[in-house]
Amino acid sequence: MFSSFDERMMQRAIELASLGRHTTPPNPCVGCIVTQGERIVGEGWHRKAGELHAEPLALQAAGAAARGATAYVTLEPHSFHGKTPPCTDALIRAGVRRVVIGVLDANPKVSGDGVRQLEAAGIEVQVGLLEEAARELNLGFEKRMITGLPRLVVKSAISLDGRIALASGESKWITGAAARADVQRLRSRMSAVLTGVDTVLADDPQLNVRDPSIDMLGRQPMRVVLDTKLRMPPSAAMLKLPGETLIFTGAGTGPRTDASAAAGGQASSSASENSVPTGDAELASAKKDSEDAGQASSSAKVDAAADELRRAGAQVITAELDPFGRIDLDFVLRELGRRMCNDVLVEAGPTLVGRVLQLGLADEIIAYIAPMLLGPDARAMATLPPLAALNQAQRYTIQSIDRIGAEARLVLRRCL
Amino acid sequence: MFSSFDERMMQRAIELASLGRHTTPPNPCVGCIVTQGERIVGEGWHRKAGELHAEPLALQAAGAAARGATAYVTLEPHSFHGKTPPCTDALIRAGVRRVVIGVLDANPKVSGDGVRQLEAAGIEVQVGLLEEAARELNLGFEKRMITGLPRLVVKSAISLDGRIALASGESKWITGAAARADVQRLRSRMSAVLTGVDTVLADDPQLNVRDPSIDMLGRQPMRVVLDTKLRMPPSAAMLKLPGETLIFTGAGTGPRTDASAAAGGQASSSASENSVPTGDAELASAKKDSEDAGQASSSAKVDAAADELRRAGAQVITAELDPFGRIDLDFVLRELGRRMCNDVLVEAGPTLVGRVLQLGLADEIIAYIAPMLLGPDARAMATLPPLAALNQAQRYTIQSIDRIGAEARLVLRRCL
Repeated sequence: MFSSFDERMMQRAIELASLGRHTTPPNPCVGCIVTQGERIVGEGWHRKAGELHAEPLALQAAGAAARGATAYVTLEPHSFHGKTPPCTDALIRAGVRRVVIGVLDANPKVSGDGVRQLEAAGIEVQVGLLEEAARELNLGFEKRMITGLPRLVVKSAISLDGRIALASGESKWITGAAARADVQRLRSRMSAVLTGVDTVLADDPQLNVRDPSIDMLGRQPMRVVLDTKLRMPPSAAMLKLPGETLIFTGAGTGPRTDASAAAGGQASSSASENSVPTGDAELASAKKDSEDAGQASSSAKVDAAADELRRAGAQVITAELDPFGRIDLDFVLRELGRRMCNDVLVEAGPTLVGRVLQLGLADEIIAYIAPMLLGPDARAMATLPPLAALNQAQRYTIQSIDRIGAEARLVLRRCL
Repeated sequence: MFSSFDERMMQRAIELASLGRHTTPPNPCVGCIVTQGERIVGEGWHRKAGELHAEPLALQAAGAAARGATAYVTLEPHSFHGKTPPCTDALIRAGVRRVVIGVLDANPKVSGDGVRQLEAAGIEVQVGLLEEAARELNLGFEKRMITGLPRLVVKSAISLDGRIALASGESKWITGAAARADVQRLRSRMSAVLTGVDTVLADDPQLNVRDPSIDMLGRQPMRVVLDTKLRMPPSAAMLKLPGETLIFTGAGTGPRTDASAAAGGQASSSASENSVPTGDAELASAKKDSEDAGQASSSAKVDAAADELRRAGAQVITAELDPFGRIDLDFVLRELGRRMCNDVLVEAGPTLVGRVLQLGLADEIIAYIAPMLLGPDARAMATLPPLAALNQAQRYTIQSIDRIGAEARLVLRRCL
């Protein structure tokens, strides 16, 4: 069904798509190649929400040569009017004869519709070339489209015996410069980085992308801090950096406060600008939701700490609490989903990492393993309840194993 | 200095040498190829102590074609009369014109002498082709030749968070069938497997090579159990299996008993006999030592437990104790060195593994990492004292990273 030329073209389209990995969120990465016979006549990749999609870019480059051509697209072209007109229309108008698709769009607004529209226009459509690799480009986007929730990736830098710090808290540095540089690349693909206030108080981390070799086009992953009692210092380093910081608190709850309502409003205004198709279309509704949330929580009960944090640039959201009085992680993930976070990196201490793992919320674990042992007194990577039997342990599969400088990097995925 | 043909030949000689990896201990693995021009006229590899060495085998195969030939040998040919006549003589008598050597023999009786004897006979000698790969064949042999002590390899099957069992002790199975099969291959290259009596009491392990696809030619790694108070049950599974079981005990010590004195005496006598060539000559003396040990420890003071274990087939050695009343690991390693153990695999619980690591005795750590987390209540892989600072942690380097079935295998080497 697919020739080796087809495969080479899709492979190239996937490489093009991945050029956008730092900058497309909340949109997916997409690459497109237009060919006549075995000649490439146009290429395009989506760079940033609000800019042109991969298909119109490739068709523009092809010009008249698009007529009768084959288009290779990593993701099913979107079929609805959002911020940009449907890419299906562009392909049809350009007179393309055949469209080869890597993977169907999981967005319920698109999935299969793109194919049907193209076929209705008499275009030959083939789906599933290098499907796994095409899907890997947008795992977080896909999850959000299906569930409304972001994909959670837990990052941990550990010793061989699974420790993240000495009993004293000393953790600089278990892993070396190469692993830390790899974390920069990892963060650069994330919509948000999630941590707990204890980590902020202990390490005052920046949680940003600061590797000058990565061009983020001004984007930064949103910093998200879980801070039940609003202990976050307004002097925290991350508040001085470009990009948004979101603080989820349980303080002042009971009835929702205005503080969090206002924060929600702000988030939603940015969301509506984004509200465009293929993922970007939803931005508007997300914005609206956040605004509602915002108003709900904006009451007269906002305390001084929240005001001060807000003046320091943070958004403060009053969250629901779980039965143990901790910030409810489902609430947080729903809110991050509404704010169109595709992939969220958890860089946190053992308590929050343990909660995320225990609740089965980690879609992926990325462990940088340093070749040393720190011993049982050192801090464990995750606080977890005792298991009564080995078969109760959550199982993951090893997605990849690599050497990163002096360390090993293991990527684990949730067993489905 | 070396041609690509030279390299291909040495590569092949290394592959031949490694065919003996299950069966040559206490001798080293050696491979030899004899060529005329670019034609292989003879090949040989050492299979088993007491049998012919690689060089005479390859020369026999070459016959008259050895005259004027090049011989590729992974390890410097031995130059002294041991159980077999010097391989240098065989090369000289056969009229070989050139000898290419992978790595010099670390045995102080040989190192450099082999080269000098060949050169004195007018043979062109070149050393160091694929030296690292040639050295990897015999790391334990090399260490023993230099230090008199075996190379210690710690094996651990752990979860991502460094746990070897639940708090209940349940550990079957953290790792899967592929990792367990890999451990069989690992054991098959070992001179001995070392464990503690607590592991015997908890798991009754066999510690043998039982993979039918590995032909051990009847050899089994020696089982070595550290058992301060002689709690080893005579019904232990390992005592019913082919191969030797050695039990080090502190029972009956205080002032040294005759048992331990005899054991010590025996050890040193074996040591002196051992001081012989390339390794294999020493077998006879080792055997003699074991017999002496048997006799030595059967004294009037030996308690009933030791007698019973001896009747069950074990050798019981009264060991020196360390200042904490535990069996002195240096004593054990010296004794295993005297018994010509090249590589010793530590398959033990956290206490013994912790002692080995803390004393800096582990030359290598092989960790099979299962993609699951067991939590802080589960048992740690090694009991180690708290560290005051991260820079006190022993550092290792990652030698290799591989996927073994569903697990990752990390091989760490001591930083030198």
